[in-house]
This record gives sequence, structure tokens and C-alpha cells, in this order.
Amino acid sequence: MIAVHLERGRVSVRSRARPRLPRGHALLRLAAGGICNTDLELQRGYYGFRGTPGHEFVAVVEESPAHPEWTGKRVVGEINLGCGRCHWCEHGWQRHCPRRTVLGIVKHPGAFQELFTLPVTNLIAVPPTVSTEHAVFTEPIAAACEILDQVLIPKGADVGVLGDGKLGLLIAQVLAAHGAHVHLFGRHRRKLAIAEASGVHTHAGGRRPRAAFHYVVDATGSAEGFREAAGMTVPRGVLILKSTVHGAVPVDTAPVIVNEITIVGSRCGRFAPALQLLKQRKLNLDPMLSAQYPLREAPRAFARAAERGVLKVLLRNS
Amino acid sequence: MIAVHLERGRVSVRSRARPRLPRGHALLRLAAGGICNTDLELQRGYYGFRGTPGHEFVAVVEESPAHPEWTGKRVVGEINLGCGRCHWCEHGWQRHCPRRTVLGIVKHPGAFQELFTLPVTNLIAVPPTVSTEHAVFTEPIAAACEILDQVLIPKGADVGVLGDGKLGLLIAQVLAAHGAHVHLFGRHRRKLAIAEASGVHTHAGGRRPRAAFHYVVDATGSAEGFREAAGMTVPRGVLILKSTVHGAVPVDTAPVIVNEITIVGSRCGRFAPALQLLKQRKLNLDPMLSAQYPLREAPRAFARAAERGVLKVLLRNS
Repeated sequence: MIAVHLERGRVSVRSRARPRLPRGHALLRLAAGGICNTDLELQRGYYGFRGTPGHEFVAVVEESPAHPEWTGKRVVGEINLGCGRCHWCEHGWQRHCPRRTVLGIVKHPGAFQELFTLPVTNLIAVPPTVSTEHAVFTEPIAAACEILDQVLIPKGADVGVLGDGKLGLLIAQVLAAHGAHVHLFGRHRRKLAIAEASGVHTHAGGRRPRAAFHYVVDATGSAEGFREAAGMTVPRGVLILKSTVHGAVPVDTAPVIVNEITIVGSRCGRFAPALQLLKQRKLNLDPMLSAQYPLREAPRAFARAAERGVLKVLLRNS
Repeated sequence: MIAVHLERGRVSVRSRARPRLPRGHALLRLAAGGICNTDLELQRGYYGFRGTPGHEFVAVVEESPAHPEWTGKRVVGEINLGCGRCHWCEHGWQRHCPRRTVLGIVKHPGAFQELFTLPVTNLIAVPPTVSTEHAVFTEPIAAACEILDQVLIPKGADVGVLGDGKLGLLIAQVLAAHGAHVHLFGRHRRKLAIAEASGVHTHAGGRRPRAAFHYVVDATGSAEGFREAAGMTVPRGVLILKSTVHGAVPVDTAPVIVNEITIVGSRCGRFAPALQLLKQRKLNLDPMLSAQYPLREAPRAFARAAERGVLKVLLRNS
């Protein structure tokens, strides 16, 4: 079988033995994988990563010895693998287990290979009415939905979202589907138009309004974006941080304290609400699919995903 | 009458005319004022300040033409003066009015003078059983109480507080009085002992425990303190920022996002709960009084307040 391999900035495709199947795991055959910004960052050496990336995927269960009822099912899967024994895992919080591994990111080989493994408990079946192309978005949509698990945003509330990258577009659409009045601030009219189709108000370039929103989401991944987002938040408002900025960011804490802003760090989310949104066809995803490549053309796919203006690039194994 | 004057790092005492009394204001005769770190920062040029500082005070109402019932009362006063017309002021949030002035800090002459003014609506009578020395602490105790207005900290919860300066000592004691199990981390055994008398567990020096508290308060005012405080917070925990650090602080946002930490900026608070704690004698304040000076010796008082290990220094006018 073939597997994508990242090492020192280079993307290659290697031949590899079938993975060994740990107890409680299912063997998964990749249908499609999505390249996300984290994968591009892993390529650049983030986390000192070396190996097979891939954490956005749809797969078909090839083998599941302990739970044969899963065999043949089309699935997506939660990407955090907890130790199963700690306080966090006991309470269903594998995502915060201090000893967790993470599919394609931390010490667990990723989905960009013909066959890979995940614990059966991480799997969720894809509803038959949801296409594989859409289901690949489950993981980033879940990350967007996580905001609503952390912060009570009332229906009808005005929300500002900064950043018109893939995650910003999904966050804006998820919050609009929730019933918020979402204002998305970005730089690319073509990308912003995608969210407009889901009822999002968009603003390209120009000055950002000061102290305008009780809820602001920063999905820019830039230090400048964080500063702008803090400035757009009203006193006592909530600023949700959704994109990591690499290295230390110079932050002036004075406005955060003086205006008593609450900053909420937000990462991965539950898959169930994401699949629900996909079933309800609430999100405009087709224009977010920029290109598809077969798995063996992964180097071209990664190069394409890193191009300016490109949104989601898929790797297909079927 | 005499007034303390700050300009370009120098503290002087000047003779000045009685202040004009704006409509709705009371003329206040200072009893005692407390020098806080903000005053020392104003002296160093923070906010480009020039004028009379002082926002922690106890005074006696000398004149109150529109509300004569206040005359002769011993009072403390909320330090933010709202415009009275905006959305924020209409809802009782003068503290966040965008056009607010602030007693002794922003465009309103401070309390370190024989006579000064505040709107009658800012005044609160000091209960007769509370001494003037204790009542001077009302404003910083209110700032500590603000944490409990922003974050629901359950009684019995373990809380970590970093910083054994004046504010850290008050925060630790206020949270202990609320019923939390407070662990105060600092560097000075003598200061930590003050909080111990109020039932606070203390830790001098040494390594800070990792991911140990669901609630952490940073009262260090240092970039290093913020980093330590974030490291002590469990995933999905709450980090309350109580001390501004000047200028931009290099912050690594990754742990905040990965661990989904909520950061709550916290500033001034309501005076009523602070006076309630003073009435109930829940806080150990006497050892926090380092020295008292007459108003005319303000330069010596400021120099003393800036010395290492010194806690609260009072200016007396009676």
C-alpha cells in the first residue's frame, strides 16, 4: 500500500506495509482526505513532525475484529486518542487527555495512506445522504461547532468573524446556521461570497469597526488579526481564539483587562453536531472544494493547497 | 488648600484653589488616601499623566448642594464617572462608558488633595463599624470582588492565585472569604503569612504545579507571571487576568487554544460587596498597612510606597 510521508518540508509517497491493528482499533481504507492548514504547518516543521499526516478523512471500515458490525461502513472519526484511563478520558474528554495521541498530528499515523487505524470508539457513521466530498469537512465543521459548546451565543446575536480562510468560512456559516447575525471580515471577495450564500454579511478590506460586537471570533491565524479582533469586541464581550499563531505573539493585555474581555481558546469539537449540519445541508461547501488529486499525487496536492486563494484540496483513494 | 501633583516622575505638593463644584457633585474633604501601584505607574508616566492622582480614599462630605442629606457623611466613592447618556451608563455600567473619566487617573483630579469632587451618585457611606484605615481598601477589595461578578467560582473550588503584592493578597483573601480553597503563590514569606491568617494556603518560591487548578488568577503584573498562570490552568479552565503588564507581552497563544483555556480580563468592581466584607471583618488588613504620612509629605510617602516589600502606604489629611 502507499502512504504520504512528510519530512523536512518534503512531501513524498512511499510504499509501506499494512498497519498492525491494535486491540479495539478498526482498519480503515481511505476514501478521501482533506488537506488543512495544520498539514501545511506540519510540512513546515511545526511539532517537529515526520511521518504520515492526515486527520480530515472519510474512510470505509475494512476490518474490525472486535466489533464486526462496523465492517463495510463509511465513517469519519474523532482525531484525539485518549489513554482511556485518566480522569479526562473517564469523563469523555479524550480531546484533553494529557497522554493523548492525535491522528496524523501527534504520534499516531495519519489518514493520508491507503489503510490506517483508529479505535472503534472514535468512529461515527456518515449518514447515507451526505456525500463523501461533504463528509470530509466533518472535522473542521466540528471545530467550528465547538464554539457553541463553549460559549452561549444567543440566536439573533451579532457576531463578528475575522478571517476568510477555510476555517473562517466554516465558522461564519456554522454560526449563521445556529441563528446568529454573522459579519465576516476578510480580504477576498470571492471567498466571502461563499459565506454570503449561507446568510452571512461580509465585509472585504476597509477599517474594522471598533467595539462593535459582543462576540468576536478570530480565525486569521495572525498577530494582527488578534489585535483587530480585540478592538472589535465590546467591553465585557467574548473573543474566541480559533487559530493558533506560531511562536509568541506580542499582546497588549491592557485593553483586555480595562475592557474586561473574556478570551476563549477553542480547538477540536464533537462530530455529532457537524454531521447534523451536513445532513441538513445548511452549509455552502461545494465552492470550498478547490481541487481533488489521487493519493499518489500528494506532492502536487500539497503544493496546490499552499497556493494563494486555494481552499480545500482533497486526496482521493477511490 | 494643598494638593499632590505628579509631573514627569516628580511628586510635589502645591497650593491650589478650592475646586469648582459641578452640578450633581459633592465636595469631599479627604480623610485618608491609599497609594496603589497604579499611582506609582502614573508617576512613571503611564497614560502621560500630569496632575493630582489618588483614587483609593475615605472622605467626609463637605458640601452637597443638590443632596444636602450627604453633608457630614464619611464616604468612599466609585472612581469611574460615566457620561450619563450612553447605552453603558443607562444600564449602570459607568465603569465601561467609552467617554468616562476616572478619579485621579483619567481627566478627573484625584483624591490626594484636601478637597476634591465626585458625583453624589458615586458615593457610598462607610458603615460606622468600619475604620477609616480599613475603608481605604474598599476600591482594591472591590476590584478583587469583581472576579466573583464575572466568574462563577463554586464554594469549595480550588483556586490558584499568583502574586503576593497588595492586590494578590486581597484577591486571595476575598476568594477564601467566598468559600474557595485558595492557594497563593508568591516569593515573600512575610507577605504570604498575611493571607494565611485568612485561611489561604501559601507557597513561597519553588516550581509552580502544572495544570493544577480550574481557576487561576494572575496578579503578578509580569509577562512571566502570565505564562506561569496559563501553565497552572487545567484544560478548559479559567485564567483571570487582574494585573496589566505594560507594553506588549509575548504570549504563546497555542497552549490557550490547545487547552481551550478561558481568559477573563478583570478590572474595577462594585463597592457594595467590598464594604460588606469589611463590615464582617473577613480580611486581614492591619499587617497590609506599611506606613502613614500626612498629605504634605506625599513625596516621602510615594518614595516609601515604591520600596521593595512595602505594602499599603496611606496619606492622611486628618
